[in-house]
Amino acid sequence: MQKILLVLSLCLVIGIAKAQKITSPNGNVTLSFKLDEAGKPTYNLNFKNRAVIKDSKMGFLFKGVKPMNENFTIVDTQYKNDDNTWAPVWGENKEIRDNHKEMFVSLVQKDSKRKINIRFRVFDDGAGFRYEFPVQDQLRHFILQDETTEFNLSGDHKAFWIPADYDTNEFPITTSKLSEIEGLIDEVRKEPLAAKAPSPNVAVQTPLMLKSSDGLYINIHEAALVNYPAMFLNVEASSKLSSHLTPDVRGNKAYLQTGYTSPWRTIVVSDDARDILASNLILNLNEPSKIEDTSWIKPTKYIGVWWEYFTGGGSTWAYSNTGDVIIGKTDFSKIKPNGTHGANTEHVKYYIDFAAKNGFDAVLVEGWNEGWEDNAAFVKEEIYSFTKAYPDFDVKELHRYAVSKGVKIIMHHETTSSVASYERQLEDAFKFMVDNGYDAVKTGYVGPIIPRSEYHDGQWMVNHYIRVVKAAADHKIMVNSHEAVRPTGLSRTYPNWIAQESARGTEFESFNGNKPEHTTILPFTRLMGGPMDYTPGIFQGDLSVYGSNKAKLSTTLVKQLALYVTMYSPLQMAADLPENYERFADAFQFMKDVAVDWDNTYILEAEPGDYITIARKAKGKSEWYVGGITDENAREAIIDFSFLPAGAKYTATIYADGKDADWIKNPQSYEIKTMTVTNKTKLKQRLAPSGGVAISIK
Amino acid sequence: MQKILLVLSLCLVIGIAKAQKITSPNGNVTLSFKLDEAGKPTYNLNFKNRAVIKDSKMGFLFKGVKPMNENFTIVDTQYKNDDNTWAPVWGENKEIRDNHKEMFVSLVQKDSKRKINIRFRVFDDGAGFRYEFPVQDQLRHFILQDETTEFNLSGDHKAFWIPADYDTNEFPITTSKLSEIEGLIDEVRKEPLAAKAPSPNVAVQTPLMLKSSDGLYINIHEAALVNYPAMFLNVEASSKLSSHLTPDVRGNKAYLQTGYTSPWRTIVVSDDARDILASNLILNLNEPSKIEDTSWIKPTKYIGVWWEYFTGGGSTWAYSNTGDVIIGKTDFSKIKPNGTHGANTEHVKYYIDFAAKNGFDAVLVEGWNEGWEDNAAFVKEEIYSFTKAYPDFDVKELHRYAVSKGVKIIMHHETTSSVASYERQLEDAFKFMVDNGYDAVKTGYVGPIIPRSEYHDGQWMVNHYIRVVKAAADHKIMVNSHEAVRPTGLSRTYPNWIAQESARGTEFESFNGNKPEHTTILPFTRLMGGPMDYTPGIFQGDLSVYGSNKAKLSTTLVKQLALYVTMYSPLQMAADLPENYERFADAFQFMKDVAVDWDNTYILEAEPGDYITIARKAKGKSEWYVGGITDENAREAIIDFSFLPAGAKYTATIYADGKDADWIKNPQSYEIKTMTVTNKTKLKQRLAPSGGVAISIK
Repeated sequence: MQKILLVLSLCLVIGIAKAQKITSPNGNVTLSFKLDEAGKPTYNLNFKNRAVIKDSKMGFLFKGVKPMNENFTIVDTQYKNDDNTWAPVWGENKEIRDNHKEMFVSLVQKDSKRKINIRFRVFDDGAGFRYEFPVQDQLRHFILQDETTEFNLSGDHKAFWIPADYDTNEFPITTSKLSEIEGLIDEVRKEPLAAKAPSPNVAVQTPLMLKSSDGLYINIHEAALVNYPAMFLNVEASSKLSSHLTPDVRGNKAYLQTGYTSPWRTIVVSDDARDILASNLILNLNEPSKIEDTSWIKPTKYIGVWWEYFTGGGSTWAYSNTGDVIIGKTDFSKIKPNGTHGANTEHVKYYIDFAAKNGFDAVLVEGWNEGWEDNAAFVKEEIYSFTKAYPDFDVKELHRYAVSKGVKIIMHHETTSSVASYERQLEDAFKFMVDNGYDAVKTGYVGPIIPRSEYHDGQWMVNHYIRVVKAAADHKIMVNSHEAVRPTGLSRTYPNWIAQESARGTEFESFNGNKPEHTTILPFTRLMGGPMDYTPGIFQGDLSVYGSNKAKLSTTLVKQLALYVTMYSPLQMAADLPENYERFADAFQFMKDVAVDWDNTYILEAEPGDYITIARKAKGKSEWYVGGITDENAREAIIDFSFLPAGAKYTATIYADGKDADWIKNPQSYEIKTMTVTNKTKLKQRLAPSGGVAISIK
Repeated sequence: MQKILLVLSLCLVIGIAKAQKITSPNGNVTLSFKLDEAGKPTYNLNFKNRAVIKDSKMGFLFKGVKPMNENFTIVDTQYKNDDNTWAPVWGENKEIRDNHKEMFVSLVQKDSKRKINIRFRVFDDGAGFRYEFPVQDQLRHFILQDETTEFNLSGDHKAFWIPADYDTNEFPITTSKLSEIEGLIDEVRKEPLAAKAPSPNVAVQTPLMLKSSDGLYINIHEAALVNYPAMFLNVEASSKLSSHLTPDVRGNKAYLQTGYTSPWRTIVVSDDARDILASNLILNLNEPSKIEDTSWIKPTKYIGVWWEYFTGGGSTWAYSNTGDVIIGKTDFSKIKPNGTHGANTEHVKYYIDFAAKNGFDAVLVEGWNEGWEDNAAFVKEEIYSFTKAYPDFDVKELHRYAVSKGVKIIMHHETTSSVASYERQLEDAFKFMVDNGYDAVKTGYVGPIIPRSEYHDGQWMVNHYIRVVKAAADHKIMVNSHEAVRPTGLSRTYPNWIAQESARGTEFESFNGNKPEHTTILPFTRLMGGPMDYTPGIFQGDLSVYGSNKAKLSTTLVKQLALYVTMYSPLQMAADLPENYERFADAFQFMKDVAVDWDNTYILEAEPGDYITIARKAKGKSEWYVGGITDENAREAIIDFSFLPAGAKYTATIYADGKDADWIKNPQSYEIKTMTVTNKTKLKQRLAPSGGVAISIK
């Protein structure tokens, strides 16, 4: 016993006396941890001996009981190295290496005897840490008032940010210095979005992309967000960030029980922007797949009865213009149809035919089910039936027809954020899907959440999204969630969570809402957590051809093609109307060819806000696809084909902006040429303003 | 068209010019309606030419849009008489007469053109009215900020009240003048209860029982509370009451869509207190049964593994004392049992044997399922499994055993108010019940509600309780909900909603919490809306015999027997431990004999707060049961047997307080005698302080 006490005392002395360090396998990244004089947990992070995160505090405030962010002693520290390689079910690479060093620190609070552990992992491209609340006598159930993790930066970096909002992540991205955010944020928040619950603080969303004046690229986010609210970052000074958790309406952050581990706080860092895009740090900090048989999970290329609802052409989700629809009471077969309902059997068959003819896997159909008359009635809880189709949508016949054509129909569950109602219907909805041959669902969360205590990014909703994904997995259903919390790499653990929206997607093109640089930033922000269903592929960018909508696309036609490579997703939509693809059949060929799953990915060029060029090898095939995009400035991409195997010649088909192409004046100008390439080839390719290049290689 | 306009104009003129009246079939009750000079809807109510409700305003405040409580014109008024008789599935009488006059007033708001209708029905014992929002172009979805219905009384009446609280109705009842409530309410609110959300106003709950100084008995409540929050009554002055709806956490009262009709606001009135108890006004204002086949709904007398959790004898709901139980993860077969778990197979068999031997229909078992270790962890959402039993509760074996003994087991779903979690499990829980032979469930809602936007009495929870009852009906399951919103006669519409608690029940006897007068008031308040699972039958009232609990029952033993007649319910529990019934086997005979369903009910004597004597004829049998109770004062009940058929002699077994009986000093003193009675018999029977009398007649 005396011996134990002696060891403990030694630990305590060591703990207070000096910082404990771990350094990444290649020595580039160093993380230090110590307790300060007040017993406050403190860490810092260096990259190649340059400060990334300066001394920053860690811990928690509790509701109704003393905080757990000071007065600690270290009772134990354990170190571990790990180096292993795993294969994702789908991804940018067929194998991912997880090579890190771990430091696990056990803390006890002097007065309260409450325990908390912190687990740090350091990789060559950054670090992650999480809090662990062990089961203990002194603590059992508790309410988090706040997490007090800081990220003290080394300077007033350039930031690519959207404002913190508990209900939406669909803001346009602003680029400014951190110190300028306070002055800009109120204006940015005026963006009209379906549900907004702005943070009262000057705060931004993660993944937050930063660039220091001396050329360090830093990305702060989180991994494995489970049973916890999403984290925002307070911007308290030009270089001081701190965690800001999504509350519920009562102002509480999380309701927890000991035995719980927090999400990982992640910092990806490099002096080369390409390393940020290539990083697997967030995936590596997530748990392996919990789904044993994943054979039914299939990367998918799809079209859909969707864009026509945005074009201004008159097609509607709703079947009628009736004002008194009540789900479970209204007999839709007896009400007057409005004649503009998009999801009718004949029209869906037209889409199925087009998908079959062009090799697409699936057709998404929105507006198929009862209730769309009230889809903007945010006060209504029982809005939709997820098991009853409108009278003009013949579920059985379309199932038969789709099967005969070898095409899947993708289910749509727009909830209008009436989530408790959705949960009540969930099992029946999934059974309905299985009974009718659906194996994938697009979920939607437009508008404020019901139950009205909750926000999109709070603990309760975080649990909801995962609950849906798990229930879907039980029915072998893939999930593509829209307007959900931003992803944190959980698609490793639940690979049926095949994509999310969770950012400003192509639909905003129909409101003139996207800037040319938008897609050069998204891979550095939103996509750090997982694939995005961005729904590119708009060829007819001038919407005035359809009617009164005057919106114009923010890119050239070719840039739309390049997005299939630069915006990684195992789920890719060809979003435009079939008629436009028929009009530009030669350009459409790239969308027909391009893969959605990959053996390898090569980040060739990258600068957030300016340009991205990526090459990828199609999974299991000797085919490569290259995509390059630029912001509003024309540029010359340099495409180094050294990613190709040595010694062989390949035919590259190059889809390039026409010489006179310009996203404003001449977006549909393009040229298609072929050339022979080897792994020695270096191609200089001009991209038009907001233009791109797409290359297929066989 | 001109003609229509002329008629409309005439109506308008008439509408403003004078009040419109209806008078009850026997002429006793008169209701008047008019618009005042500002176009505000106004009503009043008279009983035998005495003012019950003086001119009182009606209407609504909306969130974000103009109120609908003024500036109206009357566009139409329609009158209707109804006189019909219907048979409840179970009840105090085998037939109920619904004889009323109806006035239906259609209003339109001058500026907004929004429409609202008010439907009044007048009965011989009072009146009801409700608001109806017709489908219209000017209004579709809306949020109620408040209902502005007033109940202006004729004086500072005596009131039997509990304070308005959005989360509980388990307060003791206070008797005071209305004007005294403001001075008393803060003290009353200090009552320790598991969840409290006091109204900020000086406000009380309904059913509110009032007595005027000139002897009018008035009861204000509501009928058919559906998709709307429960109503409290603001006490704004000594005689001015107004509606106060339960909000959600955002302060909103209700989220509605036109086509909606509000609950009925009910006023029962008489100059004889017995008429209040005999009233069927609230049932008559509810819809007929929506369940077609009701053959499976059976009034039930039951015992249960329940009171032992309150006695202080050491029996526990929880199977273990483990601190880190997680539903779905913890393997309960591997954790250490605490050895005090009440719901174990052997113990339940002992209860089944006792039920079988004594002719009880069923045994309630609480604490059978996983999760009770955290039953007071109000922050935990996933507390219970409703399909997994503790390891020592053998579901299949107990099912087999119960069937072999001809006894049912009553399921228990304590939710600890984690309602969203319960809804997610509901279908599986009911299927589990059906698979294992359960046909009745006691639900429980202890603690604050999750979702955390909601209160027990708010619109969302009101919908929840009904949702559970409907889903239960789909599985032919009867529901007895505890800690739910107070009932409003909906058991007519959903007769499987066989009872509720929704008031301070017998469990509070174990905390010394009930006063002798309590059960002389409950039939005038809580029971006006429907039957209560009061769980009487405690013979061993001194709990110190079990251990450290010093609580003593607030009644004599005989009064406990009388409650089976005075507290109407088709679900009656014999709540005490079997050993106590074996000790007092002769008194227990009454509980074995007493019926739980009735052909006729005769209110013989009644004064709220003082005494009640009721006789009832058992359904389909020539058997009658009489119960008489008194408050802390001894009294002589006069039991007039004229309810018996003329010309025949019957044997009455009289369970009476012993001569020396007294609820404090000698509660277990009783005597049992038989006498011959006819319909000419008038029995004078002394009741001890907080005593009673129970009589069975064959």
